[in-house]
Amino acid sequence: MQIAIVLYDRFTALDAVGPYETLGRLPGSETVFIAERTGPVRTDTGNLALTADRTLADVPSPDIVIVPGGPGQSDQMENTALLDWLRAADATSTWTTSVCTGSLLLAAAGLLRGRRATSHWLALDLLRGFGAEPTGERVVVDGKYVTAAGVSSGIDMGLTLLGTIAGDEHAQSVQLLTEYDPQPPYDAGSPQKAPAHLVERWRAASRFNLT
Amino acid sequence: MQIAIVLYDRFTALDAVGPYETLGRLPGSETVFIAERTGPVRTDTGNLALTADRTLADVPSPDIVIVPGGPGQSDQMENTALLDWLRAADATSTWTTSVCTGSLLLAAAGLLRGRRATSHWLALDLLRGFGAEPTGERVVVDGKYVTAAGVSSGIDMGLTLLGTIAGDEHAQSVQLLTEYDPQPPYDAGSPQKAPAHLVERWRAASRFNLT
Repeated sequence: MQIAIVLYDRFTALDAVGPYETLGRLPGSETVFIAERTGPVRTDTGNLALTADRTLADVPSPDIVIVPGGPGQSDQMENTALLDWLRAADATSTWTTSVCTGSLLLAAAGLLRGRRATSHWLALDLLRGFGAEPTGERVVVDGKYVTAAGVSSGIDMGLTLLGTIAGDEHAQSVQLLTEYDPQPPYDAGSPQKAPAHLVERWRAASRFNLT
Repeated sequence: MQIAIVLYDRFTALDAVGPYETLGRLPGSETVFIAERTGPVRTDTGNLALTADRTLADVPSPDIVIVPGGPGQSDQMENTALLDWLRAADATSTWTTSVCTGSLLLAAAGLLRGRRATSHWLALDLLRGFGAEPTGERVVVDGKYVTAAGVSSGIDMGLTLLGTIAGDEHAQSVQLLTEYDPQPPYDAGSPQKAPAHLVERWRAASRFNLT
């Protein structure tokens, strides 16, 4: 199976690396990082670049498409080169997936109409404008479309899909070898659990806040 | 504060990206990815490269040193260029940290003697040979030395250190914004929790298995 992870300027690194480090361990698979142009692609902080080894055109029909999110997603919402590639790749993919605001790009390409899907909690409601049904779940599977919530949820998505494709034992092995036994020092990882004033602060500061 | 993340051939991507995505959000900090030479550095799978923007020599005295692990760690254990840099950087650092088998590199540089420390569960016992005291905890803080267990534990380490340096609210904000509310589909993330036959299988296959 060929797994393609799509990069674009100012994506969020962990969105891409979470699925890469888990689903990318699928036996017999090849993971390839792709972008409009090959070479380094800068993340949202500007402090890190991941290399796109191939162009979108080089990889027309991957079995699994993974689209990360990040602040740079906004600039891609009308990028026909990317949206056309997503539509064409989706026509033959086995799984079409996203992490965080990557789901807005799938939605902008028209791929989530009538589908249940998720996104970063700050962007979740925007899915509705593209005909998708937003859900607050961390990983949403609707047919071949698998969307994950914010940033770190791509790890859970990767393991979930790995288990579905390769079986529970393989996914458990990858969980064991990546020692994914999370022990966050706080319980603040969702808007339901974080201190309310922090949720309010970040809602007010969000780039999706139109009020 | 300057945060330096050290790359070398065949490191594990998530080891580096976990702390980058969390601790790297420290207000007023600059994170820089460094290696012996600038340019793309390939991860353990060969399918991904992260860019080293500066050389070790370019960044002699970061405030925070982060050393990831990965299969390539073995080849660095006698690399005097790296070990000399680690010793020199540690002489002025505020925090010296590692993820996964990165702790073996700190140990090889002589920095963990008499310290409590952790590593990937398959490598944990090796710390003892360098005069460190291995512990099974996920994040170990001993003075200014902070070591994390395997791969994904760097996320917990990053949040822990972020809270220590910048305060709980800032760390909770980063946890909220990265939506780090883990929901692994299995409970197999440590040798205590995973199916025993999988633990045995991976112990037998480990590169640290000398029997």
